[in-house]
Amino acid sequence: MSDARRYAILAPGAFDDTRAKTAHGVIAYAEDETVAVVDPEHAGKRVRDVLPYLASDAPIVARVAQTLPFRPTSLLVGVAPPGGALPQAWRGEIVAALDAGLEVVSGLHQTLGDDPEFSLAAKRGGTTIWDVRIPPQVPLFSGRAYDVAARVVLTVGSDCAVGKMTVALELVKAARARSIRARFVATGQTGIVIAGSGIAIDRVISDFASGAAETLVVEAARDAELILVEGQGGINHPAFAAVTLALVYGCAPDALVLVHDSARRTVHGFPTPLLSYRQLIRTYEGLCAGVKPARVAGIALNTRNLDEASARTAIERARDETGLPADDVVRFGPQALYDAMAPAFAAKTHALGAWAER
Amino acid sequence: MSDARRYAILAPGAFDDTRAKTAHGVIAYAEDETVAVVDPEHAGKRVRDVLPYLASDAPIVARVAQTLPFRPTSLLVGVAPPGGALPQAWRGEIVAALDAGLEVVSGLHQTLGDDPEFSLAAKRGGTTIWDVRIPPQVPLFSGRAYDVAARVVLTVGSDCAVGKMTVALELVKAARARSIRARFVATGQTGIVIAGSGIAIDRVISDFASGAAETLVVEAARDAELILVEGQGGINHPAFAAVTLALVYGCAPDALVLVHDSARRTVHGFPTPLLSYRQLIRTYEGLCAGVKPARVAGIALNTRNLDEASARTAIERARDETGLPADDVVRFGPQALYDAMAPAFAAKTHALGAWAER
Repeated sequence: MSDARRYAILAPGAFDDTRAKTAHGVIAYAEDETVAVVDPEHAGKRVRDVLPYLASDAPIVARVAQTLPFRPTSLLVGVAPPGGALPQAWRGEIVAALDAGLEVVSGLHQTLGDDPEFSLAAKRGGTTIWDVRIPPQVPLFSGRAYDVAARVVLTVGSDCAVGKMTVALELVKAARARSIRARFVATGQTGIVIAGSGIAIDRVISDFASGAAETLVVEAARDAELILVEGQGGINHPAFAAVTLALVYGCAPDALVLVHDSARRTVHGFPTPLLSYRQLIRTYEGLCAGVKPARVAGIALNTRNLDEASARTAIERARDETGLPADDVVRFGPQALYDAMAPAFAAKTHALGAWAER
Repeated sequence: MSDARRYAILAPGAFDDTRAKTAHGVIAYAEDETVAVVDPEHAGKRVRDVLPYLASDAPIVARVAQTLPFRPTSLLVGVAPPGGALPQAWRGEIVAALDAGLEVVSGLHQTLGDDPEFSLAAKRGGTTIWDVRIPPQVPLFSGRAYDVAARVVLTVGSDCAVGKMTVALELVKAARARSIRARFVATGQTGIVIAGSGIAIDRVISDFASGAAETLVVEAARDAELILVEGQGGINHPAFAAVTLALVYGCAPDALVLVHDSARRTVHGFPTPLLSYRQLIRTYEGLCAGVKPARVAGIALNTRNLDEASARTAIERARDETGLPADDVVRFGPQALYDAMAPAFAAKTHALGAWAER
């Protein structure tokens, strides 16, 4: 991990909407501090004036140049431009940041480091560009993950974009509140910016996707006793389940946490119906049973689309249907669910075959 | 598909061993003719003198130059060099082929088209280099595969390297013998060379692996009524199952054929025990049931490591344990198993959700 960053966040015209979710995630969860936000539409306000739940006093300014008095180390490009291509005005702001010696951190699909104008500016400013989606070279899965002493927990979902990253981050907070050396492992772009490291598994060549997950777990295990890995996709998502399974096998988890958005009925982008809790548990546990057993320790529900009474009903139903602890870790805090699952997080499981006998 | 090739095959010092399996596959199954083999150790013989089961009279010569009287269009580099790097002697032979205007087709990990010496020689010879492992750009999975009229059958395995490609090829032969317009879809390097087209799914970025499988099926469906797709990996292989699942969802199969090597006890490269027939069927069918139902239509056993009596016993046991047709399509020919499975290959299944109601 690099030293702590001090972020200026570039989110022109978008800081208050969901396109800025990487920006919001960094402010809410990163250990790196956000010292200023660039969004002309809210210039003069503070972050908490626009998004109270983020509880940050960081100023919002109109231009990158105005962030410099707050001594940022890095400019985060956390918003995808409408239509995909970078507007000229944004390009100028990114060049200004590089010329001022700021590192540029980008979660965009397009690789900024390959852009001649940006790479030249980075050279001029004596700084670097970190395209967080570009994966490093990783080895094939080898089984090294079976040997880590840390306990590994993977969040798995009923679908993509249900809150698997947030649940992993909240459970790390709860574990640390119990004095456990817990660490979050990022597998997608927002998580990588929050954590300051990680690999976008969906961008790894499929043969190496399990190996990428294993590499992350082995590295995280060096200084953690409990590892919470951000899952991806969903096991019956026709487009993305391969990434899901790469994580389920590659992380070699000891336990799973099932994450579900109570408003979701079909998988993201397709009419494919979600599986029921019991089908999901049977499928994920069934796959693990053939390689390295892991049980679902509990259910983390995302109830943001429900009022509080309905949320409590949904949580109760999840408990009834599965016999497992269930809660919404954002709405009601992560501690109760963490404490209920902690016994299930306490033990290592073993890979099948000769590994089990070593 | 390109016009038919006439292959010279470069297999120095290796034509008689399993490192030349791509070469053997092309001779046995490709519609493209093999006109000569380059292997100094067997120069002067014919293919059938070295490998009788290939039943080919193609001459074996010592140098690429000696293949030219047989009018090859292409040189196939079908053997991985020991240690990985191309020996200098092979490089000279490849350059000689390019200078003579032969296309060079390579299944090697290293990309020959990127090599300055080879790309220069290709330009000189007015020819091209086809690195079959390099995948094309493909879209994300979209559901187009749900709309093809052709029936899609995927071979799935108890493990990788059990014979999934061979089974798909043999079943295509059997289907054609029954006047079915059947087509083989290749997903790995040897299959791609045999078919003259295909995508090495394990080299596709994981987010796009399902989309690559779908692209292949949609293309093949244009001129086929039955499509046999070469599966990859195995569903409990800790390193490669992500590729397996990308095919299971991306091909949108109507039926599966389970392939197993009767000598295999643990998955390739790991001590992980193979799943039983019933576990395999439950796992593959269970995954399909959540997206687009598909049943296992039969079991194709690879009994090459058994004597004939033991092979018949193993086949009988597979039938008893599963209630499904079972046979070794290489040892006993594909027709009996094909005919037994044909009723299961006769109908389309439908994706779950709104697709089912269209």
